[in-house]
Amino acid sequence: GSPQPALPDDGVPRLYSMRFCPYAERAHLVLNAKKVPHHSIYINLTEKPEWLVEVSPLLKVPALHLVGEKSQPSLIESVIIVEYLDEKYPQHPLLPKDPLQRAQDKILVERFNAVTGAFMKLVLQGGDGADLWPAVDIFEKELEQRGTPYFSGEKPGFVDYMIWPWFERLCVADYFFKGRSSFDKQRYVKISAWLELITKDEVVQSHYATPEQHLVYWKTREAGNTNYDLLA
Amino acid sequence: GSPQPALPDDGVPRLYSMRFCPYAERAHLVLNAKKVPHHSIYINLTEKPEWLVEVSPLLKVPALHLVGEKSQPSLIESVIIVEYLDEKYPQHPLLPKDPLQRAQDKILVERFNAVTGAFMKLVLQGGDGADLWPAVDIFEKELEQRGTPYFSGEKPGFVDYMIWPWFERLCVADYFFKGRSSFDKQRYVKISAWLELITKDEVVQSHYATPEQHLVYWKTREAGNTNYDLLA
Repeated sequence: GSPQPALPDDGVPRLYSMRFCPYAERAHLVLNAKKVPHHSIYINLTEKPEWLVEVSPLLKVPALHLVGEKSQPSLIESVIIVEYLDEKYPQHPLLPKDPLQRAQDKILVERFNAVTGAFMKLVLQGGDGADLWPAVDIFEKELEQRGTPYFSGEKPGFVDYMIWPWFERLCVADYFFKGRSSFDKQRYVKISAWLELITKDEVVQSHYATPEQHLVYWKTREAGNTNYDLLA
Repeated sequence: GSPQPALPDDGVPRLYSMRFCPYAERAHLVLNAKKVPHHSIYINLTEKPEWLVEVSPLLKVPALHLVGEKSQPSLIESVIIVEYLDEKYPQHPLLPKDPLQRAQDKILVERFNAVTGAFMKLVLQGGDGADLWPAVDIFEKELEQRGTPYFSGEKPGFVDYMIWPWFERLCVADYFFKGRSSFDKQRYVKISAWLELITKDEVVQSHYATPEQHLVYWKTREAGNTNYDLLA
């Protein structure tokens, strides 16, 4: 793998990321929402650099290296990183303050794993992707029950930014469905309205790739020649 | 499955549990640590009751039904339940207040999934269990680095109660190893000292099963005739 890039000794947090990783995107969105200065280092996950283990023991992204803190710890796991940032940087708060609402939002993000799992199964193993839409149904119903434009209310918050990266990649699901199934605007009336709004959100736009860019990335990946540098 | 038990209309939280489930044990320990009054309802996970879906949409335990709250929500996922209880009931605080330390403790509990995964693989699928002890090594090293008797300092806290249930079941691992491998007190000097201490902790003793009881449970499970009622 590549040598470790030289970065200024400025105490600024370093986000180890991959430009097309939806989990890493969660961390980018929250750092940008809170306007936390940081360096982004994009990793080639096919040929992982040897030094990555120093900042990410399981060799995963995202990893947030807090070089300004004592003993320079590194955080892993997207949701833990995001909760840390929300506690550390109170501006643009994302999680509700009420313990019960916090728990309910965290459960909702946990239940989104059924969507991410179905998505990955579809794009990596093929199959009919039959488990994807039933998992999305839960979020349509939740948005209807909450009765607000965003999952977090009148503005995007924790749930919105945690699940958005997979909706940004809907075109990828469509490509791998190969015409068999598709995002149905009749079935997802509330999510469709949410997508209209959140696509224009300035935080989302701060780390946005177009459907075409995502498709090019996934086609290089499908061809066994993943291009990590498309937007780097 | 069994009919839903009649419970008093007292607004007291209801913990849906299984007496030998290590994840449910996490919730029991924290409710007991904080002396939160609650009802415990033990579920037969082989013949799940039809009404379980109302309190646990994925039919998992633990589920904490908050009947005293508006719209009577139910929480799932052991770590989310525990974080909720720690925020809602400030007595006997479990997680550190500092955001960075909180994140580091949550990452440690997340990394414990390598232990729980190796444990379940060993007891359900057999094999040589070779991935169990390397996963435990991380916790020996962490305890040494922290230099305190418990992971959370001078008293047991979040990390201690989250990982203890699997250490309570060490005899089960030994049984399924069938003599091939075993917990090594030389390799785990720090964890051995921690085990001596935490086994005597009054919270741990409040929801404790002996090695013999765990073994009887797992032998009935191995025989395809799981006895859920041993301690109910």
